[in-house]
Amino acid sequence: MYKVTVIVRRRPSILDPQGKAAEQGAKHLGFMNVSGTRIGKYIEFNVDTKNHEEAEKEVKLYCEKLLTNPIMEDYSYTISQVI
Amino acid sequence: MYKVTVIVRRRPSILDPQGKAAEQGAKHLGFMNVSGTRIGKYIEFNVDTKNHEEAEKEVKLYCEKLLTNPIMEDYSYTISQVI
Repeated sequence: MYKVTVIVRRRPSILDPQGKAAEQGAKHLGFMNVSGTRIGKYIEFNVDTKNHEEAEKEVKLYCEKLLTNPIMEDYSYTISQVI
Repeated sequence: MYKVTVIVRRRPSILDPQGKAAEQGAKHLGFMNVSGTRIGKYIEFNVDTKNHEEAEKEVKLYCEKLLTNPIMEDYSYTISQVI
């Protein structure tokens, strides 16, 4: 079995309203030193395949079809074997 | 200036409907090997303070007051100086 973590980020050119909202909240609470807040996704799951190659194929498909929006987001992943 | 990344995860005992939905979609698409999907947040921002200690204080407050729900979520962070 393989343990997978995926980080999904909006492309730098794409607005991030959730990040903007958090930052506006921060200003209201008096945190004046915070800037450039961007909120993405941190996804964890298991893939139960025979080898690393098959796991990677499934991870890529899962990311591209369901976990990310390929028009607005980039992703990176790590796959590690669980013994 | 300091660059901060925060990872926010739901506690293991808390249901994750977004993860469940993604996984159900995966099954429909024929990815039968995927399990245990949990979707959290990956947050990036800058903190402009004089020293690491002040930055850390602000990061903790920002996390606890705005970025996370301390009842349902845990968080971890890394702070690195930008030169």
